Amino acid sequence: TLAPDSRPGTISSLQWVSRTAFCGELGPEDIGKRVQLCGWVALHRVHGGLTFINLRDRSGIVQITTIPDEFPEAYSVANKVRVEYVIAVEGTVRSRPSESVNKNMKTGSIEVAAEHVVVLNSVNRALPFPVTTADDVKDIITEEIRLRYRFLDLRRLQMQSNLRLRHRVVKLIRRYLEDVHDFVEIETPILSRSTPEGARDYLVPSRVQPGTFYALPQSPQLFKQMLMVSGFERYYQIARCFRDEDLRADRQPEFTQLDMELAFTPLEEMMGLNENLVRHIFQEIVGIHLPNPFPRLTYVEAMSKYGSDRPDLRFDLELKDVSDIFSGCSFKVFADVLEFGGIIKALCVPSGSEKFSNTSLKKGEIYNEAIRAGAKGLPFLKVIENGEIEGIPALVSSLQPSNREQLLRVCSAKSNDLILFAVGQPKVVNKILDRLRMFVARDLGLINQSIHSILWVTDFPMFEWNDSEERLEALHHPFTAPNPEDLDDLPSARALAYDMVYNGIEIGGGSLRIHKREVQEKVLGTVGVSPKQAEEKFGYLLESLDMGAPPHGGIAYGLDRLVMLLAGANSIRDVIAFPKTTTAQCALTKAPSVVDSQQLKELAFNNLDSS
Amino acid sequence: TLAPDSRPGTISSLQWVSRTAFCGELGPEDIGKRVQLCGWVALHRVHGGLTFINLRDRSGIVQITTIPDEFPEAYSVANKVRVEYVIAVEGTVRSRPSESVNKNMKTGSIEVAAEHVVVLNSVNRALPFPVTTADDVKDIITEEIRLRYRFLDLRRLQMQSNLRLRHRVVKLIRRYLEDVHDFVEIETPILSRSTPEGARDYLVPSRVQPGTFYALPQSPQLFKQMLMVSGFERYYQIARCFRDEDLRADRQPEFTQLDMELAFTPLEEMMGLNENLVRHIFQEIVGIHLPNPFPRLTYVEAMSKYGSDRPDLRFDLELKDVSDIFSGCSFKVFADVLEFGGIIKALCVPSGSEKFSNTSLKKGEIYNEAIRAGAKGLPFLKVIENGEIEGIPALVSSLQPSNREQLLRVCSAKSNDLILFAVGQPKVVNKILDRLRMFVARDLGLINQSIHSILWVTDFPMFEWNDSEERLEALHHPFTAPNPEDLDDLPSARALAYDMVYNGIEIGGGSLRIHKREVQEKVLGTVGVSPKQAEEKFGYLLESLDMGAPPHGGIAYGLDRLVMLLAGANSIRDVIAFPKTTTAQCALTKAPSVVDSQQLKELAFNNLDSS
Repeated sequence: TLAPDSRPGTISSLQWVSRTAFCGELGPEDIGKRVQLCGWVALHRVHGGLTFINLRDRSGIVQITTIPDEFPEAYSVANKVRVEYVIAVEGTVRSRPSESVNKNMKTGSIEVAAEHVVVLNSVNRALPFPVTTADDVKDIITEEIRLRYRFLDLRRLQMQSNLRLRHRVVKLIRRYLEDVHDFVEIETPILSRSTPEGARDYLVPSRVQPGTFYALPQSPQLFKQMLMVSGFERYYQIARCFRDEDLRADRQPEFTQLDMELAFTPLEEMMGLNENLVRHIFQEIVGIHLPNPFPRLTYVEAMSKYGSDRPDLRFDLELKDVSDIFSGCSFKVFADVLEFGGIIKALCVPSGSEKFSNTSLKKGEIYNEAIRAGAKGLPFLKVIENGEIEGIPALVSSLQPSNREQLLRVCSAKSNDLILFAVGQPKVVNKILDRLRMFVARDLGLINQSIHSILWVTDFPMFEWNDSEERLEALHHPFTAPNPEDLDDLPSARALAYDMVYNGIEIGGGSLRIHKREVQEKVLGTVGVSPKQAEEKFGYLLESLDMGAPPHGGIAYGLDRLVMLLAGANSIRDVIAFPKTTTAQCALTKAPSVVDSQQLKELAFNNLDSS
Repeated sequence: TLAPDSRPGTISSLQWVSRTAFCGELGPEDIGKRVQLCGWVALHRVHGGLTFINLRDRSGIVQITTIPDEFPEAYSVANKVRVEYVIAVEGTVRSRPSESVNKNMKTGSIEVAAEHVVVLNSVNRALPFPVTTADDVKDIITEEIRLRYRFLDLRRLQMQSNLRLRHRVVKLIRRYLEDVHDFVEIETPILSRSTPEGARDYLVPSRVQPGTFYALPQSPQLFKQMLMVSGFERYYQIARCFRDEDLRADRQPEFTQLDMELAFTPLEEMMGLNENLVRHIFQEIVGIHLPNPFPRLTYVEAMSKYGSDRPDLRFDLELKDVSDIFSGCSFKVFADVLEFGGIIKALCVPSGSEKFSNTSLKKGEIYNEAIRAGAKGLPFLKVIENGEIEGIPALVSSLQPSNREQLLRVCSAKSNDLILFAVGQPKVVNKILDRLRMFVARDLGLINQSIHSILWVTDFPMFEWNDSEERLEALHHPFTAPNPEDLDDLPSARALAYDMVYNGIEIGGGSLRIHKREVQEKVLGTVGVSPKQAEEKFGYLLESLDMGAPPHGGIAYGLDRLVMLLAGANSIRDVIAFPKTTTAQCALTKAPSVVDSQQLKELAFNNLDSS
């Protein structure tokens, strides 16, 4: 029995009850059973001279009843407890009177008649928000308060369920990779050396060697390549990564990747294995059946058709290059663009003529979207009956009938459709129309939520031009293998890289890697790393490529984002136990914080200028 | 077939061979089968006009033979490859001529007759040490070189096996905790806040809030307690932890813990679950059957009998307190010690009289051990025939016959035994005799390697006196629960703490935690944390204890050390893929390193004084 020698209602920490059952698992089959339960008071109410408690543990909730005549002490203790008290209850499972059966509750047909109730811990201050009764607390309470009292926030059903789902996803991934594909999990260092992944590193000053710093890894990229050179052949890790960036809604300073690398695995095998993995996850976790194989688009196709390298294909709305149609046209804006090497692309919005008024197209939200994406205006045409068009008069009048017909044909435009144009350099044009395409899809409700669009985008360019630094930089990272067909013109080569895109969100990305020293040297040279710098920063990589590096490649998935999508959460912070705020703070522990001057002194930071 | 359109001996990275078999898995049952293999040249020899290659992949090694007449190109390529080249081979499995059968090789009865051989990558510089042929390379090559070329070192069979064993251990742990005990794996932050665990923190300066720092966690202690307050009830994590300490042989700046925490779990259940886990690991990984239940010693017993809180019980050699026997004795050294409140303890070494000469006892290695442990000398007695003793004359003569008999009885000393003494304050006495006990056991070969000693040490004191800071400090950490029986005298209270000790090495340690705010405040006060400091550093913990914290507790295991023991390795560096050297450097990547001045500027480190 439960701590029989303790004073009523109290229990010492050596006498915690050994529970014999879980609240949420009790059912009619347990009627008559004597059970010991532990948990939190989820609800406390007095009704008809009796006290009822909803007791919550990790398995769910069960109703506790009191019998004042038979067990007056239990009744008395139960009467005094309040919501979120931690209690232990010993009692007997019995069926509820039929009028009390709660069909909305898993354990709604039974209750536990308490014979002993012991308070394990009480609540001694007002709770900042309710835990059990308000699962819409998110809409009432600011995220700041939720994060500040994360230990309470995580007690809510939604957060419990999010983090348990995260655990199930990771478990599934591990077992699939280990059991089906013989992967080895290997830990790589957190105290590591800066590698150029594009973002800012978090630095850790060394006490032993003043003036030097470890960097927290942005990814285990070079370590996993070293593991391939070491012959592990199939490595994976649920890897913690770090980026000191100004945060956006879906970024965190520390985040988690499913990181993997394989040797001797051709491109198709690599992509096939990863498709199987992701299909398995979606099937098992959310019952979504993804296609086999995944559709693919090359980077060039994706940019051409959707203006984006991570297109959302839950709806069509394909972009069309209509530069030819306007070649030699009299509309000055278009003519000028073409003359200076720009392009003209069109997005045809079905029935868009009715849905977007001329006013909104000239100064409404859709117009603002275009401007925010870098457009100088939003040229448009509306298709009226019989293939006639209307819109900016100069644009309408510039089109010969044959060109007009050609335009409508290319855009598959029908009566009442709206044609939006973007003009200029391809990069800007694509950016504008990508944004308009997404805006129109959301605004007109074109996104079918029951469709799940997954695809590979392949054949990325190796390099892109960085305007501000006036140099080529690696689009992925400089260890990505160029397509061997393109080696003669490396700066414009395609990479053997692949991104996995789900509903317009990149969930994973990877590549085959360079495994030949001479290729690696050329690629580093192309992004402006001198041989001396290469030797200094990547000497060990170059050396390893000279000592029997196998062909290899891999991929990394943003685990937080993947879990967010699977959980249907709106923010990655809702699938991370202790996330940072958008100012990179931990609202709970108040990290980062000031530290002891003695500690700084040891790090030779005494002259730290914090201005 | 294998890249048929490629030039002989070359292959492009788009045409990696899709392997159809693994080297080490081929056997007589595969004879006649056509296979495609990939791997490293482990051995290359020319014999009787033929070229033989031992091809190694992650599964093992198989012999490749050439048939110059039938497949001249394959022969020609095979002839040119060298050790550690990466190659692909297509060929047919056949049985070896009986005179070539190698019974020491798993695949020794078969070979693969090569029809195509393709070089995937070559070796273009002298290897710093051999990979396959010298698994005793450790004895030849300095660890510095091994770490410098870790990508080669990890290719050696021993290191492959160590890291694969590590993976198996982690896999086993995960599945046991998840499948048998319903634990949830939850990630806790790396960018966190300093908590007082006794060691120095690694700090990460914040760019967003200049002058403040994140600390890398020494353990996820407070986060896992927050998870208990959140109702997860059973949490585990394979957690990366960090300590900026001057390294000893078995320490690393970053290390890995198996970390777990449970709510509503009484002490006995906690220890039982962990015994089951560790028994399971030892049984499955190394076939060692550990006792059920594990033996236990209280801290007081362990210190009294073995002078250590992590005694190695593979041999006896119990210490005896013989202060009473020498009370009022004439030997000045002993008399003085007793007068000033010290104690006298003895260690009886069976047959030690013969094995340790008077000379070695007076200035040999055993004497030096005592001195290094803090002794001022090494008093001893040798038991000769008929219960007579010899040794330092003043000591021998100080003993009355009855006291002498009592001494021999208490020490169970027989003829030829040696009795070693340590005198002084208990702490020093225990330290000396612990060290002598271990020295004697090793020196005399008393450690039976087939015995596996595992035990719990319990009832640690909550606090110990820190001489240099002149204050009490927590022996474990200040979140450890005191034994409720001892609350009236907190400074001398026992803790509800438990360490697991295997063959004299602490492999895990934990405790029940404080879950009541008033107790937590008292304990923090006892170690000198003022209410203001407590609020500032642990405000969220105190708050959480007021909002429904359940009784909880947990344990953490040093995973690196545990794996080292299971692998029979001598150093934790041999079970870590990329360890740091004893100066906390990564010999491979050369971390820590100097960083860009621009990077430092952003962190307001421009005035960094690196003197």
